[in-house]
Amino acid sequence: MLSQTTEYALRAMSCLAYYPDQLTPTPQLASMTKVPPNYLAKVLQLLAQHDLIIGRRGVGGGYRLAKAATDITLLDVVAAIDPVERITSCPLGLANHGGELCPLHCAVDQAAERLISTFEGVTLQSLVDNDGASKPLCDEDLTSHFKLTVGQTGSSNGAAGG
Amino acid sequence: MLSQTTEYALRAMSCLAYYPDQLTPTPQLASMTKVPPNYLAKVLQLLAQHDLIIGRRGVGGGYRLAKAATDITLLDVVAAIDPVERITSCPLGLANHGGELCPLHCAVDQAAERLISTFEGVTLQSLVDNDGASKPLCDEDLTSHFKLTVGQTGSSNGAAGG
Repeated sequence: MLSQTTEYALRAMSCLAYYPDQLTPTPQLASMTKVPPNYLAKVLQLLAQHDLIIGRRGVGGGYRLAKAATDITLLDVVAAIDPVERITSCPLGLANHGGELCPLHCAVDQAAERLISTFEGVTLQSLVDNDGASKPLCDEDLTSHFKLTVGQTGSSNGAAGG
Repeated sequence: MLSQTTEYALRAMSCLAYYPDQLTPTPQLASMTKVPPNYLAKVLQLLAQHDLIIGRRGVGGGYRLAKAATDITLLDVVAAIDPVERITSCPLGLANHGGELCPLHCAVDQAAERLISTFEGVTLQSLVDNDGASKPLCDEDLTSHFKLTVGQTGSSNGAAGG
């Protein structure tokens, strides 16, 4: 349903949502998200191209979200990597279907609609605000390590990592 | 959301559902489904490997459904090409998540559940029984051509093609 690349992008964005005021270096992101560093670097470039994150090179560089985590939904992330497209006209171009979809493509379109509806209802902020027992990417050891090593670009937001 | 291969598989299976008692040659299926013949041949091999269709080589050969169109859902077809997998445990293997999914993977799993639910509710038979104005793959010219050229393996089922 979702590609490996999309899964990795969702992990990276969730990770960055914990630390909106910091630049997070790619190696730390790779550790937190358990994504191969070279693969992650390409995913981050894609996310930056879609203006979801901002990167800075060099010592103390890394990535941060391009806007507030309340303003980024899972659908924004999915759309940057593998857009979910609604079906608006017959994919076979059959003239006698007119504007109406056949039942096959109605079903496929309904599935797309439900996928979109699920992902657009979830912001990155809601993931990290979760009061439940588990949070995205929160391996206790990794988050401790992460907090000690990420670069700072502003005041700490006091995000709980554990 | 669905790969090109899955879309083509859904078209091919819908097409075969119109003519359950006939062996349909690959070139005719390619015409009806508007899928490149070489690509379609590979898709049909995959579907046959998953016991959804049965093929016979040689003159008068082709493919037919392996069971009744009432017993094959869109999910069966999707599962043969790109299985939609529910998430049952943390994809990162984080021990402190226990058996509980984090909100990110809860959302991804919910999307998978909805996709499965949509596709498992639609049989191939329901597609061709549709009383609406449009039916899958029903270009009038193509279906006329198709009826004249497909191989026969039994009595006609009188399927309406238009």
